[in-house]
Amino acid sequence: MTDFPDRLLAGYRSFMSGRYADERERYRVLADTGQKPHTLLIACCDSRAAPETIFDCGPGELFVVRNVANMVPRYEPDGQFHGTSAAIEYAVQVLEIDNIIVMGHGRCGGIQAALDPTMQPLSPGDFIGRWMALVRPAAEQIQSNDLMTQAERQTALERVSIRNSIVNLQTFPFVQKRSEKGELRVHGAWFDISTGELWVMNEKGDFVRPDLDEPMAEGEQALA
Amino acid sequence: MTDFPDRLLAGYRSFMSGRYADERERYRVLADTGQKPHTLLIACCDSRAAPETIFDCGPGELFVVRNVANMVPRYEPDGQFHGTSAAIEYAVQVLEIDNIIVMGHGRCGGIQAALDPTMQPLSPGDFIGRWMALVRPAAEQIQSNDLMTQAERQTALERVSIRNSIVNLQTFPFVQKRSEKGELRVHGAWFDISTGELWVMNEKGDFVRPDLDEPMAEGEQALA
Amino acid sequence: MTDFPDRLLAGYRSFMSGRYADERERYRVLADTGQKPHTLLIACCDSRAAPETIFDCGPGELFVVRNVANMVPRYEPDGQFHGTSAAIEYAVQVLEIDNIIVMGHGRCGGIQAALDPTMQPLSPGDFIGRWMALVRPAAEQIQSNDLMTQAERQTALERVSIRNSIVNLQTFPFVQKRSEKGELRVHGAWFDISTGELWVMNEKGDFVRPDLDEPMAEGEQALA
Amino acid sequence: MTDFPDRLLAGYRSFMSGRYADERERYRVLADTGQKPHTLLIACCDSRAAPETIFDCGPGELFVVRNVANMVPRYEPDGQFHGTSAAIEYAVQVLEIDNIIVMGHGRCGGIQAALDPTMQPLSPGDFIGRWMALVRPAAEQIQSNDLMTQAERQTALERVSIRNSIVNLQTFPFVQKRSEKGELRVHGAWFDISTGELWVMNEKGDFVRPDLDEPMAEGEQALA
Repeated sequence: MTDFPDRLLAGYRSFMSGRYADERERYRVLADTGQKPHTLLIACCDSRAAPETIFDCGPGELFVVRNVANMVPRYEPDGQFHGTSAAIEYAVQVLEIDNIIVMGHGRCGGIQAALDPTMQPLSPGDFIGRWMALVRPAAEQIQSNDLMTQAERQTALERVSIRNSIVNLQTFPFVQKRSEKGELRVHGAWFDISTGELWVMNEKGDFVRPDLDEPMAEGEQALA
Repeated sequence: MTDFPDRLLAGYRSFMSGRYADERERYRVLADTGQKPHTLLIACCDSRAAPETIFDCGPGELFVVRNVANMVPRYEPDGQFHGTSAAIEYAVQVLEIDNIIVMGHGRCGGIQAALDPTMQPLSPGDFIGRWMALVRPAAEQIQSNDLMTQAERQTALERVSIRNSIVNLQTFPFVQKRSEKGELRVHGAWFDISTGELWVMNEKGDFVRPDLDEPMAEGEQALA
Repeated sequence: MTDFPDRLLAGYRSFMSGRYADERERYRVLADTGQKPHTLLIACCDSRAAPETIFDCGPGELFVVRNVANMVPRYEPDGQFHGTSAAIEYAVQVLEIDNIIVMGHGRCGGIQAALDPTMQPLSPGDFIGRWMALVRPAAEQIQSNDLMTQAERQTALERVSIRNSIVNLQTFPFVQKRSEKGELRVHGAWFDISTGELWVMNEKGDFVRPDLDEPMAEGEQALA
Repeated sequence: MTDFPDRLLAGYRSFMSGRYADERERYRVLADTGQKPHTLLIACCDSRAAPETIFDCGPGELFVVRNVANMVPRYEPDGQFHGTSAAIEYAVQVLEIDNIIVMGHGRCGGIQAALDPTMQPLSPGDFIGRWMALVRPAAEQIQSNDLMTQAERQTALERVSIRNSIVNLQTFPFVQKRSEKGELRVHGAWFDISTGELWVMNEKGDFVRPDLDEPMAEGEQALA
């Protein structure tokens, strides 16, 4: 009938007979009343870091932007197309979400490309090259640090980039305004694919393990 | 310690004790060997239409771009920032994915905005207005049909927009080249939030229910 | 004895030994006391959309008009022959039915003909051409939409035509009068031949799936 | 959700879990390949004489026109709306059906009205009056026979009207042409609601019981 990938059709049927069957009513209500997500989550396209999976969120919770390396450009009212800025505008002005989270992760291909001075354009359009230019200055400074290993430099830039995006978020007048009113909170997070560890940014900009001193955490680790 | 939303930390702990515990090894391998997703999925930011949920996909399967109204602009090598084009370039040229799926959904807020002639800019940047300009001509033609209901016009534009994005995908030389070689397939899909129905695009551009004549389908329904 | 089609005689014998045998008494009573159907159903002649089958109705329930594309003309007291208007008049004024349902369906040949600008008269009388003129203006507006596929345009016109017939029904003074008194309700329905789905018109004129949030519905699906 | 009659929704669910579930594939094929009915059946709107029930026919078999008193007007290429003529034209010219059956039945309200000289218009449009004018001359002659009982006169007119419609069918050039070629056969039938008896017209125009000397028949009657 169509050549739609069998793997995905099988996954869809599993969703219908499982999760959808369980949450049928929730989907119905969300369709009728509209979405009211509490959080705008800006994540990477990486196939190993799906926000709904990592935060075990159900339908209606997360409004999710995913671009290469989970980046937020500065506020640029220049009449150009800005997909990420459009999503931020819609989430804050229409959905009035309570939180914005910029979530990065380890082994990020985009960050790796930004750190590779020999990187050639992937196509005449050089879209990745242009896109990663958002962190080029930071990438050059970090790459020049020959005391850190390549893995350390990559993790460093992944985290610098998250802080950079959070700074850029504040250049959006409507983000700044609602933040000042205390109606909106901006957060940073970094997910370690290899260990499953979630690190969140604290007020100093450092990334810490929020679950470590949680009683539950040990239990989890035991289970794990 | 941080003001990271409790709801999300609780969800993360549930992920760690549940899914991550079950797939620990898979995450480890994916971290060491890198991702090799089979599909680039271009979806909407909508909180009710998470691709990994709808296709019940695990880590490593889907490279996911999410922007407002799951749109793909035309190939424009103009030196500007193009987040979606960058992701497509990376997925096709570096990850060499096998499929690109453009997935739209019902009750899409972006499409609704495009169909609203009275819509005012949401901010001085008017990012949503600029972004939705990608379907403005189609929106105007469809909105001019006064015989269809608003809901019918919206569904029509949601589907027209998917076909439009698929046409735009073919303007990317590398997409066209790999498609012609038979190394890449481009698909359209539309998810009905209220019913959970998945409709996929056939060779004529029509959206059909792929699960309907699958022997499995009835079984699932019985399970549901 | 006669050349009456064997297939139909065999079907008749099956009716006599099955359904009639079971409902013998009901037929006798209906013959003696006369019919008192609750519903006037205006359906298409299409062989795939028999109302008694789709609604599993027994003798005495549905007073059924079937014409090409289930259309209702406007009230025209012009002294001409109006078969459909005559049936509506009889059902409302003599039988005092409680409901009028206009039921359309997918893949309707009449609607397809209306959308085909190259359609030639099928005979010198051009009866289909004249009959489908009832939806000509709508057909032209919908056909002019070059963004929708032919199948999408057809479904759109099938539904527009149902709304159109419902508007026309209200031009009959006796329909309007009994509707205003709350003695008569007018409904729209659309049957999808390929999936068996029934869609009914809601107060906005949109077609929705009435069985979806019925507790029974899942059971049926399980049974199916 | 809608006020669609519960009785009909329940009937629809019964259809979906029963007959549709059994004939799912047949409906799918009929949707994809289109209908190819063998017979055009012209029947009455009467709720007690549904053709698919009486002939136990499945989807795709009968193309059915239903008007008050199952009448066929003469061929009138006068540019007016002729719903019944349009259906005949479509069935013969497009579907190329093999048989046309005009089926009347006992206790027909339309025939009863035609025989009632005191009958007043049911509305200012007097649609039934105009429609039944098709048999007015025959009705007057039969009503003037004061030797027959009213019941006998009614049965007589029901049968005269069937023969009259069959004569009118032959005024359609395309019916005549295909009949002469032996590609189309025209039949008459009369259904007795109270006994379930089917009478079919023989070459002399008489109505006979086709099943009486059929070996199966006794069996049926035993079962009945």
